[in-house]
Amino acid sequence: MTNNYNPIDYTLSYQYDRRLYRQDIAGSIAHARMLGRQGIITQADVDDIVRGLEEIRQEIETGSFPWKAELEDVHMNIERRLHDKIGEAAGRLHTARSRNDQVSTDVRLYTKDVIRQTVAGLKALRQALLDRAANSQGVILPGYTHVQRAQPVLFAHHMLAYFEMFTRDAERFRQAYARADVMPLGSGAMAGVPYNIDRYTVAGELGFTAISANSMDAVSDRDFLLDFQSAAAIAMMHLSRMAEELVFWSSEEFGFIKMSDTYTTGSSIMPQKRNPDYAELARGKTGRVYGNLMGLLTMMKGLPMTYNRDMQEDKEGFFDTVDTLIPTITVTTGMIETMELRPKRMYEAAQASNVLATDIADYLVEKGLPFREAHGIVKRLSAYAVEHGKKLHELPLETYQKFSMHFEGSVLALSVESSIEARDVPGGTAPARVDQALAEARERLKAEHAL
Amino acid sequence: MTNNYNPIDYTLSYQYDRRLYRQDIAGSIAHARMLGRQGIITQADVDDIVRGLEEIRQEIETGSFPWKAELEDVHMNIERRLHDKIGEAAGRLHTARSRNDQVSTDVRLYTKDVIRQTVAGLKALRQALLDRAANSQGVILPGYTHVQRAQPVLFAHHMLAYFEMFTRDAERFRQAYARADVMPLGSGAMAGVPYNIDRYTVAGELGFTAISANSMDAVSDRDFLLDFQSAAAIAMMHLSRMAEELVFWSSEEFGFIKMSDTYTTGSSIMPQKRNPDYAELARGKTGRVYGNLMGLLTMMKGLPMTYNRDMQEDKEGFFDTVDTLIPTITVTTGMIETMELRPKRMYEAAQASNVLATDIADYLVEKGLPFREAHGIVKRLSAYAVEHGKKLHELPLETYQKFSMHFEGSVLALSVESSIEARDVPGGTAPARVDQALAEARERLKAEHAL
Amino acid sequence: MTNNYNPIDYTLSYQYDRRLYRQDIAGSIAHARMLGRQGIITQADVDDIVRGLEEIRQEIETGSFPWKAELEDVHMNIERRLHDKIGEAAGRLHTARSRNDQVSTDVRLYTKDVIRQTVAGLKALRQALLDRAANSQGVILPGYTHVQRAQPVLFAHHMLAYFEMFTRDAERFRQAYARADVMPLGSGAMAGVPYNIDRYTVAGELGFTAISANSMDAVSDRDFLLDFQSAAAIAMMHLSRMAEELVFWSSEEFGFIKMSDTYTTGSSIMPQKRNPDYAELARGKTGRVYGNLMGLLTMMKGLPMTYNRDMQEDKEGFFDTVDTLIPTITVTTGMIETMELRPKRMYEAAQASNVLATDIADYLVEKGLPFREAHGIVKRLSAYAVEHGKKLHELPLETYQKFSMHFEGSVLALSVESSIEARDVPGGTAPARVDQALAEARERLKAEHAL
Amino acid sequence: MTNNYNPIDYTLSYQYDRRLYRQDIAGSIAHARMLGRQGIITQADVDDIVRGLEEIRQEIETGSFPWKAELEDVHMNIERRLHDKIGEAAGRLHTARSRNDQVSTDVRLYTKDVIRQTVAGLKALRQALLDRAANSQGVILPGYTHVQRAQPVLFAHHMLAYFEMFTRDAERFRQAYARADVMPLGSGAMAGVPYNIDRYTVAGELGFTAISANSMDAVSDRDFLLDFQSAAAIAMMHLSRMAEELVFWSSEEFGFIKMSDTYTTGSSIMPQKRNPDYAELARGKTGRVYGNLMGLLTMMKGLPMTYNRDMQEDKEGFFDTVDTLIPTITVTTGMIETMELRPKRMYEAAQASNVLATDIADYLVEKGLPFREAHGIVKRLSAYAVEHGKKLHELPLETYQKFSMHFEGSVLALSVESSIEARDVPGGTAPARVDQALAEARERLKAEHAL
Repeated sequence: MTNNYNPIDYTLSYQYDRRLYRQDIAGSIAHARMLGRQGIITQADVDDIVRGLEEIRQEIETGSFPWKAELEDVHMNIERRLHDKIGEAAGRLHTARSRNDQVSTDVRLYTKDVIRQTVAGLKALRQALLDRAANSQGVILPGYTHVQRAQPVLFAHHMLAYFEMFTRDAERFRQAYARADVMPLGSGAMAGVPYNIDRYTVAGELGFTAISANSMDAVSDRDFLLDFQSAAAIAMMHLSRMAEELVFWSSEEFGFIKMSDTYTTGSSIMPQKRNPDYAELARGKTGRVYGNLMGLLTMMKGLPMTYNRDMQEDKEGFFDTVDTLIPTITVTTGMIETMELRPKRMYEAAQASNVLATDIADYLVEKGLPFREAHGIVKRLSAYAVEHGKKLHELPLETYQKFSMHFEGSVLALSVESSIEARDVPGGTAPARVDQALAEARERLKAEHAL
Repeated sequence: MTNNYNPIDYTLSYQYDRRLYRQDIAGSIAHARMLGRQGIITQADVDDIVRGLEEIRQEIETGSFPWKAELEDVHMNIERRLHDKIGEAAGRLHTARSRNDQVSTDVRLYTKDVIRQTVAGLKALRQALLDRAANSQGVILPGYTHVQRAQPVLFAHHMLAYFEMFTRDAERFRQAYARADVMPLGSGAMAGVPYNIDRYTVAGELGFTAISANSMDAVSDRDFLLDFQSAAAIAMMHLSRMAEELVFWSSEEFGFIKMSDTYTTGSSIMPQKRNPDYAELARGKTGRVYGNLMGLLTMMKGLPMTYNRDMQEDKEGFFDTVDTLIPTITVTTGMIETMELRPKRMYEAAQASNVLATDIADYLVEKGLPFREAHGIVKRLSAYAVEHGKKLHELPLETYQKFSMHFEGSVLALSVESSIEARDVPGGTAPARVDQALAEARERLKAEHAL
Repeated sequence: MTNNYNPIDYTLSYQYDRRLYRQDIAGSIAHARMLGRQGIITQADVDDIVRGLEEIRQEIETGSFPWKAELEDVHMNIERRLHDKIGEAAGRLHTARSRNDQVSTDVRLYTKDVIRQTVAGLKALRQALLDRAANSQGVILPGYTHVQRAQPVLFAHHMLAYFEMFTRDAERFRQAYARADVMPLGSGAMAGVPYNIDRYTVAGELGFTAISANSMDAVSDRDFLLDFQSAAAIAMMHLSRMAEELVFWSSEEFGFIKMSDTYTTGSSIMPQKRNPDYAELARGKTGRVYGNLMGLLTMMKGLPMTYNRDMQEDKEGFFDTVDTLIPTITVTTGMIETMELRPKRMYEAAQASNVLATDIADYLVEKGLPFREAHGIVKRLSAYAVEHGKKLHELPLETYQKFSMHFEGSVLALSVESSIEARDVPGGTAPARVDQALAEARERLKAEHAL
Repeated sequence: MTNNYNPIDYTLSYQYDRRLYRQDIAGSIAHARMLGRQGIITQADVDDIVRGLEEIRQEIETGSFPWKAELEDVHMNIERRLHDKIGEAAGRLHTARSRNDQVSTDVRLYTKDVIRQTVAGLKALRQALLDRAANSQGVILPGYTHVQRAQPVLFAHHMLAYFEMFTRDAERFRQAYARADVMPLGSGAMAGVPYNIDRYTVAGELGFTAISANSMDAVSDRDFLLDFQSAAAIAMMHLSRMAEELVFWSSEEFGFIKMSDTYTTGSSIMPQKRNPDYAELARGKTGRVYGNLMGLLTMMKGLPMTYNRDMQEDKEGFFDTVDTLIPTITVTTGMIETMELRPKRMYEAAQASNVLATDIADYLVEKGLPFREAHGIVKRLSAYAVEHGKKLHELPLETYQKFSMHFEGSVLALSVESSIEARDVPGGTAPARVDQALAEARERLKAEHAL
């Protein structure tokens, strides 16, 4: 490799930046039309340029476009091809524009597109969570802290916890969208351009809400990609947490769910074996998305103004994050939609002794005991139960009363169900609260406008 | 170390989490008052608790509080101290609350405080940039791409580029603030609490705008810290870029600025030497802030619901970022305010030949030549100038005309000043545009309400 | 904060670099003695310097040293104190030395110390794994792939897997040690010093194996810290994997181990609850170590030669990694030593149907069937078993023979034990192989010399 | 995308893992031969398998191999193709082997290959540095600290600083090689295989020095990739430092070098402009390599034993680092070889006043003054020079003597050259030392055996 390496290969980007072709062509068309309107180039030139670019788009989409490595990037490939098609007018397209503001415009348009997809994907995922919550009425599982059973919760409540996470993600992507939604075109190489251009109509035609306020910043700013990358890293973190739960819930030990065939890989020799490969990959792919964020932050660190070629390195990690995040959302949605719950296994696990201890203490507090004293009584009671191999709710009233005369028959009514019922606060797992939370979540989701 | 290590040391956090004492006490007071209002504890208990906690706050602030390592964290230190002071009533404070929702409440309150400071710091920094821009009328330096002189720009324009970056940072922190501004208290350990509490009035008293919608999410969510950490990483990236420029501008080779004594470290033997240590540290500290972000993302990756002790690790990196970012903003503000410009050195650098080449080509385009042809002419002209050791603007008209008869006397009027003047587009470096941008920036800054 | 911030605070390092005092003093003493031997300073000066520095060491260790913030770092604090003690001779200590080579020498000495501790800690951890392996003869648990039971293995075999990981870690740290074991003193500020010094005897006195070969590299090299940080990151990754297993093994669902009280935090109300907080913290602390590595890499990225003040930022993340890694190794050793196995739960889990499927296929292959055909037969057999709610090894011979007449009575002898026995290859889980691996591991560990 | 996404696409790896085809085939051939030797399969089967696999290799290399997405990965594509070619015998190849030990073997073989290339590349780079050092006799430039001129050094000395860095890199890669050089084959899925295989001869045939000692570790170990990734990150850090210097040295302000046309991108309109794009890309690509390291560390964090599908994610980041690092080394070698030095610019910069101040102080020390007093004198002298707009070495003797009567005529002989000459210590910049260092470096480089 060392010896035959052609240095030019080091700078090529057309292999990956050609996915920007639609944005590049749209940007050029809008620019050309504006140049025409402003009298900077003739209408005939505009017509040639637009026609030529539309042909090129056609060629690319049908696979007949002659990509040339030696032209290095998507912009030069299109530019040269346009010249082949329409001759000298092609050169006029580049009046009042530089590669620096052109690239940034393309990437911003592309970013807006993928954020739209991401937000749509997060909506579908949350819809799946809500549907799952709605269709699992009465399913109870242990809530865990420290991977130890802590308190019983509704399965729906658990799904709604994830709804909240992905709702924050969606908000974060919308905010990233707003920062991407600023048109740099007109900033030239870095100082602005010496032509009487009209940046506003170009922005309008391309669907940008605003134009950049400073040309030097415009060509050296990649914040919108960092916004995307950090929102993606946080979203992948959430997805990795859900994936971890799906993996463990699928284990023989937990046995809370059976993943669908679509999202498992069976061992060919063990038909009953269902490796949760998709969840594992979702979890594992978190690493690359974190890495892409770190890569971009590192690349930008300490760069002086304005454009430096280092910044060409902003794209591959970005595309890789896009290609990782959106499928991961889609696949996770599918897993949620298709997994089969095993409510009996969940319920049995929720019957564990620990999970009622705090309810029993709260029972005594209600009977008037100070919290700390109630606490001590239950501690001794629990120790007794462990020693005798019983769960707390299997003990008879007499035993309870040996530890405190404040216990009455009603203590025997404490159950996983009563525990859940009692958490009747906003955000709590009581069925009525969960129903309300579910209804509100539906409203919130419906109220979100598409980007 | 291996042999004498006391395992309990592994879990201690009071050394660093005690900086949350104000938030912890405020949260407890609001919680106690609500318990009283709801009739869950007596008013007498409330009074004792509030008085006790206020004494404790006093003790901590005067340095007389007896911190005990064996109590592990700030919460238990305060709790135990309260018990010493008011006895049994201290235990009642913990009714309807868990360590899990308490910790999260404290950290959110703290986060809100530091974001307020950060946003204020960014405002002061931007004010310094605007003042610097306003006070450097007519100062011209070369704008760079690839660390090569590209086009002349106003120094004010350069300062406004940074204004834009830090404005995005401020917006990002405000969005982080909004996500931190949600009260988890009332979520209990993870399922909600079995008491008739009133979460809304507690939120109101603590200054929270909203309450959390799901108890499981509430105790396992650290997004607000990730929001802060990623906003901080991006802000440090911007600061590192400015720092890089300050370092190089301070070099003998550039000589564009003289940093003030406050922000340089002289060599004791070379009084004229001014090492830009502060700018270097600002650049170098970027690393730890990136690292803290990565640390938090890694820690959260793949954690199952809900609270896991891993999450105790959310704080030190956060505090370190706070302690790095805010001083870096402050120090950078100081460097901007106090650096001495060397307009002569800047102007000389801007006189370089390259920087007018595009203007000359644009001149020909205006005379009707196609862009590509104009381009070719200037290329040959430049080659000629280089060969003869001249800058473009030192050539006589006859020489120009040897390359194209479209050149007229007016070409000799092209200058660094005319080049700047010509970039008369929104966001461009033309003086009128920069004045306008500066005025708008002042308005934008003034319109930002404090958090 | 913004307003009252004293810029000098931005540069202070004595709060954390004072932990280098022993190395700094040792380095100075060795340097002074050499200056004396070379006739660069007088023997009387040497005697004063050595005595003064030894007093200072005493003061620091007894807590009577007057640290002064305004002196910024450990070096200047010691230097000034020495001057207070011995006057003008203190100034002569700094002949033929610069802060740049001094700092690097101190940090390298410190690094060597902490690597020694790390390697000793890894040895103790591996000893604990070997002891655990030796004391769990016959304990069988399921080996997992994809968190699905795959094949039965000896618990000892599982412990030995971790032995291998930590052995690689120890090797990595030894290699880092060798790269730290190079003395930069004598490099001056960056170009060498204009005195007739003897670097070799100083190196010998300080215990360095080699001296640096290039003065510019010497003062700007922090590779030895990166070596440490990356070895630490990999080691923490291993520790996090073990921690994850300990957490899940401790869950009610797995129930494979009971962690000792020392390494769990009980809920005060649920005495039977054992939160594996130490394992969780070990897993969570992985984040900060990764972050510190990333911070250092970022800080060093793109720094021009030679020393830049950014490099002061090399220390805090390093110290933090030291303070995290060594205790994590220690705590993990303790967890391994003290955890109580539950062989019955492990064995029951290993009885799962899946785990013998490959053995049955291998049985048929031995009877002469092609692998693929054997495979198909077992697949059908497994499906049958699942359908009839049986495990494979519960089926009678007749059932086996319905699927293939190659099954004979001996197939019924296939068991978890026979499966383990059959993996009789180097590195396999067969008892004899594990015994041998254990014996070899003991030898390897014993053969490792202390650093 | 969301709607039409085919979940299977989420798991595909053949697009990138097919680059392992040579290793996969070599591993299979060695495995088959061993199975034959051990009598596990017939020699006829072995012959068929070997012939079939060699045909497949041929097909892949000539581009006629029918890659099928639905077969997911390189292994299954080859396996199925082999079955098409030789029928049932293909199935026998998979006796006593699992995908888990097969994949790891392939990746280790590949890793060894790329480390060989990396080490060769680093050798060529260091050769270029040595040649450059040898061919720049007498070239002097300022050595910098804090990007401020500090002391004059030989250009050759500067090159040798980089030689040291890349020598450490080479050592690090060799150590990574040794850890990759361990054969996992024979570990089966995770517990070993129930066949009488001979792992040693397979290892020998494949060129492995050792076999793995524990089957569970063998299939879950990716340390060798982390070793590669961290060595690569550190190497890229070094390359980024050199790149930063090349970028600034190429600037008009420094003007120390002229990069060759091959490694610059001219502006088409400014023929004299030479953007150092290659150096910028080398610097910028550091980010992705750091990111890949972080991605792998994150992915592995907290994974329980043994193989988890997450680990499929080990490859793309690895390949990306390979594809980044090796070309960056190659391109940097080219830049070093072809850059044109501008000794005059360097020398002028080295004439700066500061750079002799320490030499003058050392002069007085040699005359018997205490260091601290000498220091004070030079400080006052320097202040005087600055005030009078002179450089120190431009002052007449009388002026010197106004500040100290210890100055004699010989002080006027102090010069950039004498300063360099005086640093006559091992590792110093004195010409004789540099010559010796260069000679030793040549020896060291020659003594390095190829891997």
